[in-house]
Amino acid sequence: MSEVDAVVLLSGGLDSATTLAMARSEGYRCYALSVFYGQRHAAELNAARNVAQQLGAHDHRVIDVDMRRIGGSALTDPNIAVPETEQDGIPITYVPARNTVLLALALGWAEVLSADHIFVGVNAVDYSGYPDCRPAFIDAFEQLAGLATRAGVEGHVMRIHAPLIDLTKAEIIGIGMELGVDYAITVSCYQADSDGRACGRCESCRLRREGFRNADLVDPTIYVSS
Amino acid sequence: MSEVDAVVLLSGGLDSATTLAMARSEGYRCYALSVFYGQRHAAELNAARNVAQQLGAHDHRVIDVDMRRIGGSALTDPNIAVPETEQDGIPITYVPARNTVLLALALGWAEVLSADHIFVGVNAVDYSGYPDCRPAFIDAFEQLAGLATRAGVEGHVMRIHAPLIDLTKAEIIGIGMELGVDYAITVSCYQADSDGRACGRCESCRLRREGFRNADLVDPTIYVSS
Repeated sequence: MSEVDAVVLLSGGLDSATTLAMARSEGYRCYALSVFYGQRHAAELNAARNVAQQLGAHDHRVIDVDMRRIGGSALTDPNIAVPETEQDGIPITYVPARNTVLLALALGWAEVLSADHIFVGVNAVDYSGYPDCRPAFIDAFEQLAGLATRAGVEGHVMRIHAPLIDLTKAEIIGIGMELGVDYAITVSCYQADSDGRACGRCESCRLRREGFRNADLVDPTIYVSS
Repeated sequence: MSEVDAVVLLSGGLDSATTLAMARSEGYRCYALSVFYGQRHAAELNAARNVAQQLGAHDHRVIDVDMRRIGGSALTDPNIAVPETEQDGIPITYVPARNTVLLALALGWAEVLSADHIFVGVNAVDYSGYPDCRPAFIDAFEQLAGLATRAGVEGHVMRIHAPLIDLTKAEIIGIGMELGVDYAITVSCYQADSDGRACGRCESCRLRREGFRNADLVDPTIYVSS
């Protein structure tokens, strides 16, 4: 049986690594795509490369998009600090239209590959309240994807898979562990150091740390201050 | 009366220059955005800068996205030649998901600016049959735009304006001339030389040349071979 091709967005963090493992376990041949939009450090790129290799991605590409040109987020404007306490509303780490940009690039690659499947690790349970992590956003992007590409013209469907969307962080970690994800090589922290060590204080670190605690699993994350 | 802010996608070609002129004539304060996705030459960037200035854009930014990493088009893969005869179906100059990527970046900047309006110069009459120039695509992106951003959460609407979508090339040129667009400084050619001189043979040149002819207007384009 020939494998079905899928593009999998891969940041190098916990969620996208788990998503790649799930796509692989469902039998997809995975083309991992990392998009570096201005916020990232070499450690996160290294993490994405290591994860792609560990989980058997068929190919891995990196596209640079300098979203610092528009700023507006603590992740893309060096003058805005990453908050280390919980925030009300949509936090300043939200990058305007980021997931639309990521999915658009994944869509481009999928079309070049004639792949009809895209996987993205968005999650709407233990998440930071970003508008572009909601199920309605994913549904709208799937609608758009058909119309934006040859798929719509040629009468086939482009599927956007968001397998984590309804899971808690603990459930995500549990599934990933069963599928053999090595979370020690993933980097979720918004402000990891150049060796990939996590700050332990940002929202992303807090959600991740609580996920391991709630899953009753040892947290393999290497923290700067631990 | 305070001006309403809009992001206007500006390639430096005829259609986007006309779109900017139309947005300006409707009273919008225009933030012009050029996205260089790998296919472009310095001449097109210069054209975009000159057009932004000539038509009174409030700001102009350029974002690089290296879509050559995924290729799949004569515009982003140097090994695929730009065709100089008419093609059946979706031509090889179609860049997979390009307009989705462009609109996603425009959406990001609009959100940073708290602007609820985006203008894009897509056209579905005298065009090359690209799927992402059709009205249904624009409608789907407008749906997505509300869900992807704070707009949806905060209950306001993000509008995608495609004022050229139902116009012939001759009509577009007629409107632009009335609004004072200097088409001599625009570059539409898929393979213009470093001085911005057009090949006169590619699909984009053919549509443009026919537009001036049908509008009974002098074509100010500088051709390599003229």
